[in-house]
Amino acid sequence: MDFAFDATTNRYRDRLLDFMDECVYPSEHAFHEQAAGSGWSPPPMLEDLKAEARSRGLWNLFLPPSDTRGEHGAGLTNLQYAPLAEIMGRSPGIAPPATNCAAPDTGNMEVLAEFGSEWQRKEYLEPLLAGEIRSAFAMTEPDVASSDATNIATSIRRDGGEYVINGRKWFITGAMNPNCKVFIVMGKTDPEAPKHRQQSMVLVPRDTPGLTVRRGMTVFGYDDADHGGHAEVVFEDVRVPVDNLIGEEGGGFAIAQARLGPGRIHHCMRLIGMAERAVELMCRRVLEREAFGKPLARQGVIQDWIAESRVRIEQLRLLVLKTAWLMDTVGNKGAHTEIQAIKIAGPATVEWILDKAIQAHGAGGISQDFPLAALWAGARSLRFADGPDEVHKRSLAYRELKKYMG
Amino acid sequence: MDFAFDATTNRYRDRLLDFMDECVYPSEHAFHEQAAGSGWSPPPMLEDLKAEARSRGLWNLFLPPSDTRGEHGAGLTNLQYAPLAEIMGRSPGIAPPATNCAAPDTGNMEVLAEFGSEWQRKEYLEPLLAGEIRSAFAMTEPDVASSDATNIATSIRRDGGEYVINGRKWFITGAMNPNCKVFIVMGKTDPEAPKHRQQSMVLVPRDTPGLTVRRGMTVFGYDDADHGGHAEVVFEDVRVPVDNLIGEEGGGFAIAQARLGPGRIHHCMRLIGMAERAVELMCRRVLEREAFGKPLARQGVIQDWIAESRVRIEQLRLLVLKTAWLMDTVGNKGAHTEIQAIKIAGPATVEWILDKAIQAHGAGGISQDFPLAALWAGARSLRFADGPDEVHKRSLAYRELKKYMG
Amino acid sequence: MDFAFDATTNRYRDRLLDFMDECVYPSEHAFHEQAAGSGWSPPPMLEDLKAEARSRGLWNLFLPPSDTRGEHGAGLTNLQYAPLAEIMGRSPGIAPPATNCAAPDTGNMEVLAEFGSEWQRKEYLEPLLAGEIRSAFAMTEPDVASSDATNIATSIRRDGGEYVINGRKWFITGAMNPNCKVFIVMGKTDPEAPKHRQQSMVLVPRDTPGLTVRRGMTVFGYDDADHGGHAEVVFEDVRVPVDNLIGEEGGGFAIAQARLGPGRIHHCMRLIGMAERAVELMCRRVLEREAFGKPLARQGVIQDWIAESRVRIEQLRLLVLKTAWLMDTVGNKGAHTEIQAIKIAGPATVEWILDKAIQAHGAGGISQDFPLAALWAGARSLRFADGPDEVHKRSLAYRELKKYMG
Amino acid sequence: MDFAFDATTNRYRDRLLDFMDECVYPSEHAFHEQAAGSGWSPPPMLEDLKAEARSRGLWNLFLPPSDTRGEHGAGLTNLQYAPLAEIMGRSPGIAPPATNCAAPDTGNMEVLAEFGSEWQRKEYLEPLLAGEIRSAFAMTEPDVASSDATNIATSIRRDGGEYVINGRKWFITGAMNPNCKVFIVMGKTDPEAPKHRQQSMVLVPRDTPGLTVRRGMTVFGYDDADHGGHAEVVFEDVRVPVDNLIGEEGGGFAIAQARLGPGRIHHCMRLIGMAERAVELMCRRVLEREAFGKPLARQGVIQDWIAESRVRIEQLRLLVLKTAWLMDTVGNKGAHTEIQAIKIAGPATVEWILDKAIQAHGAGGISQDFPLAALWAGARSLRFADGPDEVHKRSLAYRELKKYMG
Repeated sequence: MDFAFDATTNRYRDRLLDFMDECVYPSEHAFHEQAAGSGWSPPPMLEDLKAEARSRGLWNLFLPPSDTRGEHGAGLTNLQYAPLAEIMGRSPGIAPPATNCAAPDTGNMEVLAEFGSEWQRKEYLEPLLAGEIRSAFAMTEPDVASSDATNIATSIRRDGGEYVINGRKWFITGAMNPNCKVFIVMGKTDPEAPKHRQQSMVLVPRDTPGLTVRRGMTVFGYDDADHGGHAEVVFEDVRVPVDNLIGEEGGGFAIAQARLGPGRIHHCMRLIGMAERAVELMCRRVLEREAFGKPLARQGVIQDWIAESRVRIEQLRLLVLKTAWLMDTVGNKGAHTEIQAIKIAGPATVEWILDKAIQAHGAGGISQDFPLAALWAGARSLRFADGPDEVHKRSLAYRELKKYMG
Repeated sequence: MDFAFDATTNRYRDRLLDFMDECVYPSEHAFHEQAAGSGWSPPPMLEDLKAEARSRGLWNLFLPPSDTRGEHGAGLTNLQYAPLAEIMGRSPGIAPPATNCAAPDTGNMEVLAEFGSEWQRKEYLEPLLAGEIRSAFAMTEPDVASSDATNIATSIRRDGGEYVINGRKWFITGAMNPNCKVFIVMGKTDPEAPKHRQQSMVLVPRDTPGLTVRRGMTVFGYDDADHGGHAEVVFEDVRVPVDNLIGEEGGGFAIAQARLGPGRIHHCMRLIGMAERAVELMCRRVLEREAFGKPLARQGVIQDWIAESRVRIEQLRLLVLKTAWLMDTVGNKGAHTEIQAIKIAGPATVEWILDKAIQAHGAGGISQDFPLAALWAGARSLRFADGPDEVHKRSLAYRELKKYMG
Repeated sequence: MDFAFDATTNRYRDRLLDFMDECVYPSEHAFHEQAAGSGWSPPPMLEDLKAEARSRGLWNLFLPPSDTRGEHGAGLTNLQYAPLAEIMGRSPGIAPPATNCAAPDTGNMEVLAEFGSEWQRKEYLEPLLAGEIRSAFAMTEPDVASSDATNIATSIRRDGGEYVINGRKWFITGAMNPNCKVFIVMGKTDPEAPKHRQQSMVLVPRDTPGLTVRRGMTVFGYDDADHGGHAEVVFEDVRVPVDNLIGEEGGGFAIAQARLGPGRIHHCMRLIGMAERAVELMCRRVLEREAFGKPLARQGVIQDWIAESRVRIEQLRLLVLKTAWLMDTVGNKGAHTEIQAIKIAGPATVEWILDKAIQAHGAGGISQDFPLAALWAGARSLRFADGPDEVHKRSLAYRELKKYMG
Repeated sequence: MDFAFDATTNRYRDRLLDFMDECVYPSEHAFHEQAAGSGWSPPPMLEDLKAEARSRGLWNLFLPPSDTRGEHGAGLTNLQYAPLAEIMGRSPGIAPPATNCAAPDTGNMEVLAEFGSEWQRKEYLEPLLAGEIRSAFAMTEPDVASSDATNIATSIRRDGGEYVINGRKWFITGAMNPNCKVFIVMGKTDPEAPKHRQQSMVLVPRDTPGLTVRRGMTVFGYDDADHGGHAEVVFEDVRVPVDNLIGEEGGGFAIAQARLGPGRIHHCMRLIGMAERAVELMCRRVLEREAFGKPLARQGVIQDWIAESRVRIEQLRLLVLKTAWLMDTVGNKGAHTEIQAIKIAGPATVEWILDKAIQAHGAGGISQDFPLAALWAGARSLRFADGPDEVHKRSLAYRELKKYMG
């Protein structure tokens, strides 16, 4: 047992910390100003940041070091990447896209690298790896409890050499961005098959007839336009060639599961970076503000918030790192309990910390003048992502109970 | 001791419930659609709703039955008005302005009725009572901890027959609305006076030179444009005649205190209405949604949320009603502990309930398709209003401790 | 709506407050010392306190003013009695038995007054009302989840002119006291009847052959010997005449329900008294203790505890009072939701307050030198009494959901 | 970074797990029965368990592998010992004393090994290491807030070749056991010295005139007689030779600090073992109990408790392990933040889990029939041990804030 980062991790951390200090933090203000005038596209300056990150060797860091993929990414394990994702999470609207490590592209690239056919990889994976296009992952539906994947109602019906897709999806992150060129769509190819073999995933180019990106959903009032929003997307008799199937028919549920593990690690590590940012902002604020004749930093209740935040962050980070280590050593399946545990603990913990940081900022904390309220909305929305916490707790509890069943 | 409403209250409740059913709820969808195209002004249909409410005798219900004011309002006590404010809170963006019972006008009208000179009442109170203009209350400042009113930095310097105002305010609710014609501005007329005698309030018409309404602050991602937003307002050598002083020089702190009591009752009762709306939405949702083969309503965790919500609402409502009764019977000063208690308990309780209702709605709960996320942002922001909870707890604790001091 | 106590309540409150100040608080230390040497019997000095209370007209205050019972008690309504029970709760081991208002006798006397036959009332109710004997209520069983009354396994089989009782009960409060002369036993007379008609209640004198009071159960580390402990009681072929049936066969469930309403009001009001005592002790302690150069009373976190305690107590008390009022005006059935609500809110709220008071006392708080730890254990155990909170929440949620069912 | 145990740890874990299965768990019932009849001494069977543990090489495992001490213990690092302490914590009243790894002896032995003179080690350390005598650590005082060590009032005045000790201590764990032969007493040798140089520690044999072990303090009703209780001890002109000073005059505070680090690791690891035991008991219980027609295990709220328990345990354990690793690699000082963090998080987390396990057991959970209530009382009391949580949070917050001070 050893809690120190290895040399590779430390090298990348140093490089990334420099990039944050030299390029990311100084751009934040201008980035948000540009974003305000860029509609649903990212601010133009993002391209400069991408070029800079790439030139520094900070590109596609998320890709695991398996044979077919090592050529593209940095070849880092989950355990090596996790602390980097944390650092990116300190400026979650800029650092991940600047380094081509932003969701949902990361998960989509992993899916294509692992399950995509040769032409799919050539057509979509390569420009994604190059940061030329963006992509979306169309899973959640407005009309059913998405907590239960077997509820999915979108149909993907085979008709000769084509699949015909009908359904309605929402909260499709990134899809409002016109440069989001392709959707990975989850739907049912065979409603009669066993519960977890009914679903398949197909690639649907943005300009396919019948696909309508209808509107952006808001998240506590935020449209998140700078990273392409969260779209409602309607599929009406959308037709794609059967070659657009990812993997095999009936394999959709398994692919979704495979995609979730790394996705949660990334989300949770970024959440920790957000929490660290919040603690820093809270500390700086309470040191400089006075009320009732002394700095807020000397109020016991605020000290309590700071201490609790530190205690909770330290625990959460270790669990995420251990989960990454398990995924590297025993695989996603062996890490199932831990992957669920961080999904449960991460958003709730970080939401709590952000709430306290907001409170320490007074009214400013809920406004556009500090990043806290927007970070909060992001953390809060993760309590639904990939199914609400309650579903994960249920499942985790069953696994615990099973240990004692006859 | 008697927990039944009196006949007057019941009569007004019935009348208001009808108005909600017949006019308010059916307008909600259209109201928000119109609002989206109305900039910082309220949607035009609000005028129709106001006319309707007035014709039904639902107008200025908030005004207490003291001599000078009884002529204008319904002459209801705080205890009689409280259950009405609760009902309005079920649709808090429409019912209060439709009945001319919306903050900050309500508090401003009370201030003018109680402390205003004859010309001030004629010039500003009358059109406010008639619903012809709106007003703002400019207290919070970005540069100091507003939790401590003695921190206020805006200066109101006397210069001959005029006051000269310099300072910066923010989160001035309603001020983005062009029909917000007058500001009650709190500032320091005498920084050398005893701590609670330094402040005064003056009336500043919107078009006074030097007054700039600079931008709307957001609350989480909401700009609250339909009720005039929350403005940053800058005062640079703004000059008003000395007649614009409300009450006497050095009386600002006392007026602010007098204004707070009823304000909190109103806020808290509306919060309870919001909570009831949330419980209703939560129940309806979980009855209709299925996951894992049964309605969400049969999940134990969700039942726990519903029961806890009910238990908390019942307690909170009673405390608010008792506070109203105390204000009516022993005055705001005698109700000081209870006024602080509801300010502490109200927003936190209702925020918790809204969070659960949101979670029960899945991703939809945080979007524009349900009112819950916006209600949540409103409840959350009340944890700062009139100073953060922490300041009120401190003060309430001192009062409790004093009972045992020698 | 009116939140003031009526004249009768105020008169009794004054009288009781005097008794507390003059007799109860000054006896506490000696009472516990005597109790340590009295085995399972109450300390002898209790008889003096009883005589004193009776002479002051503070006797059987709990009995409601219905025809058959008014002759015995003070004729107070639930709403009038509630504030008195609160005051007794400030010294819950002494004041209730001193005034003959202690559980489980209170509930048992109500059952006998309402459902008992003439000889049952003569034989048991009269000496109970006179404070000459004590009684027990034997419901909870070790082998089944007592949260579900239909689970009860004890059998009460009719055999000629007798009932034959077999079963095991535990946590039978008061039963270790040798002066506990009679048990009201709940069991099944007809396992084939409809679910809520299977149970009956019978009176079993302590000395009946086959009845064994086996041992005292502890509550955390307390044996509660001064009020007769919490016994495990075994019934092996215990025979009683059929005349010992209370009410009718199959009526046990209904009697149990009828008994619960007032019982919870009493428990909850006493809990509030315990909470008030805790706040007083906490305030006194933190005013006198210093750490880091200032009294603990000036630590923000402790102020937060005090304020939160006050805010929670005020809300809880009002809900209990309203519940009492509902029971008086619309009956136990009409007050069902509120009765469950106070059962849910009461123990949890007061447990929280006691925990904070304990923490403010340092290690002393958990010891025998302060009443806090024992009060805490009492409050905690009420989270099970009459079924765990979770069962009540479930039931309350169903009632809430029903409002929205088709 | 590596989350696997090393070979030594695994070897000891296997050995200890066997000992638990074969000797400890099967003895639990008899141990408590014997304890009930053993007064303040441990049950006689403990000696057999000690002999067995020693013969299995499970003895003094806690002693770190530094030069002077390696000869006595197993030579395990903190990181290697931590998982063993966790396992012992599953039966915290038996396994630690059986393996001579019980507080307060462990800390006392470390103090003597590191700071004791040759004769002190010969006289006291050797019989302690051999498990022949027990010892106590006399720090906490009833009359001052022990959260602030500079408050300590006991005086240790030099008088020729002797120290004269006067003062009152309480909650001196183990001191009621007649075999507790020596006290390490913390007091002030120089009240005029700088704040952290006023204190010294001296060894006081139990039979020294003037030393009175007055009474056992209870912990939520428990006297903890099987491990020697928690005594109030009075020192009246107690005289010991100056050779009984441990280390140097004025070194008491530093020794106390050195003692705390490992102490907390041990406490927290045992707490985790207690939590694991609680989860196991909870799972087994809810699988076998039925209510409302299905096993409790299928109730959503109970599943939530189980899942939350697992999620919290995993996080807490990792933080404790990392803290152990830091102590091994950078020393106690470098691990200061983490040592405080586990002291804050450990008792609160495990108390929560125990509360839920208790609730799942119904009334049985608070009784002597399950270990849960006693474990709870132990966990709760650790929220005070070495100063209340609030003091540690304050200190941890200061350290966090310092990062941002100019």
